[in-house]
Amino acid sequence: MTELRVVCHQLAPRIGEPDYNRALTERAIRGATSLNTQVIVLPELIQSGYVFTDLEEAHTASEALDGPTLSLWKSLAAELNIIIVAGFCERLSAGRVANSAALVEPTGRLTVYRKAHLWNREKLIFTPGDSPPPVVNTAVGRIALMICYDLELPEWVRLAAIAGADLLCAPVNWPNAPRPADERPAEIVRVQANAAVNRMFIAACDRYGEERGVDWVGGSVIVDADGYPLAGATSHPEEQQLVADLPLAQARDKSISDHNHVHQDRRPGLY
Amino acid sequence: MTELRVVCHQLAPRIGEPDYNRALTERAIRGATSLNTQVIVLPELIQSGYVFTDLEEAHTASEALDGPTLSLWKSLAAELNIIIVAGFCERLSAGRVANSAALVEPTGRLTVYRKAHLWNREKLIFTPGDSPPPVVNTAVGRIALMICYDLELPEWVRLAAIAGADLLCAPVNWPNAPRPADERPAEIVRVQANAAVNRMFIAACDRYGEERGVDWVGGSVIVDADGYPLAGATSHPEEQQLVADLPLAQARDKSISDHNHVHQDRRPGLY
Repeated sequence: MTELRVVCHQLAPRIGEPDYNRALTERAIRGATSLNTQVIVLPELIQSGYVFTDLEEAHTASEALDGPTLSLWKSLAAELNIIIVAGFCERLSAGRVANSAALVEPTGRLTVYRKAHLWNREKLIFTPGDSPPPVVNTAVGRIALMICYDLELPEWVRLAAIAGADLLCAPVNWPNAPRPADERPAEIVRVQANAAVNRMFIAACDRYGEERGVDWVGGSVIVDADGYPLAGATSHPEEQQLVADLPLAQARDKSISDHNHVHQDRRPGLY
Repeated sequence: MTELRVVCHQLAPRIGEPDYNRALTERAIRGATSLNTQVIVLPELIQSGYVFTDLEEAHTASEALDGPTLSLWKSLAAELNIIIVAGFCERLSAGRVANSAALVEPTGRLTVYRKAHLWNREKLIFTPGDSPPPVVNTAVGRIALMICYDLELPEWVRLAAIAGADLLCAPVNWPNAPRPADERPAEIVRVQANAAVNRMFIAACDRYGEERGVDWVGGSVIVDADGYPLAGATSHPEEQQLVADLPLAQARDKSISDHNHVHQDRRPGLY
């Protein structure tokens, strides 16, 4: 198993400007291809922006799985032979919407995950998903999907890891919050721990750019199976393209001593 | 609810020298009292040392709950009005031993926890515990107990948090391992994440000092309910006394936004 090159491209969508956002993603995807990238991760809700006033506005911004952004991503994945993971506002039936992530493969296969743990006012707007994080057996490795606040539920991350994920890709929008000087943002610390206790790579792609009074950490990060950052891991609220080469075989070996295995050491009967 | 003063006193026991180790703990406990400390945490297996050759040696080093070290701790807790949390090699029936932690209250109540997730060669020596981490309703707050590698199972930490712990005290012996320059030891990162996703204080007391070819991180740390360190959090393989004042009320408020609660947001039906 060779190394997998992954890019997280931290961008700032504009709410209410879907054409702008779509063009932004195309630029990032084409840019990653020039680095021979096999997987690109883009932020949560990059297709639409984040700070919706209400469900009505989110519904207007939403698109179905055959909408223009998903269609573009399918076309680019096939043209450029790249796997695209990105967040979008998904139009459901009956006027509902989901905070979703797409994994688009060059083969044309589309996997969609709907955020199961909603953050703050998302609960007033989005319908939460009820399905576990998918683990997609792609041509370049087993890739799991979840979104932002999902990462704060270690039980959820565990599901993806036990289902065999080598790499967890997570579009995120991490709202900025106070923290002690010289401390890494807590969201990044949690990503590190999630990776280490599962021996799984994680690529979390954040956004930047103030939107309706909210700003973001700009903390995109790619961590290895020991939980140490390979790229990113600082608050950098500007556009940035993180690149890392992941020796995915490390994620297939869950042994951490002569007698320990991060998953077999679990005692589910006691939890 | 006022602040709780907790001390982690990082020490180096000597294997095969129980009198020395006992005196070491007495010095640390009396030293903490001079700071008006309400809880002191000492390392894993501080009564015995760690790197046993085999079960026979561990059994010789073990003591029952009325043994000399536990008796000393009970006496000191009552005399000095302090809660003592410390690790010891517990003599069980039929020649077995456990890697245990005691929580000794000034009232004379003794709570014992037996490590449920064993590290490396511990599996050849110790009988693992089958009981969840206890949460003790002390006069100064609700204090949970677990030991070292237990902290790498987020499911286990969750049990203590959901049972209402304000503060988790963990005697540890973290074996040193390579890590990237400028990175905090991964064990500390996991403590930070465990605290943050549960909004619970954690005090982990490590040891230092080479023993039979093994050395330790010396990474004792006390973290707040946001997962940020209040004391320690570096590799400092020397004796050290960490002190922190914990506003335990923060651990009673699990809300992290207008619509989020770290425990109520869990969806156990999906895990």
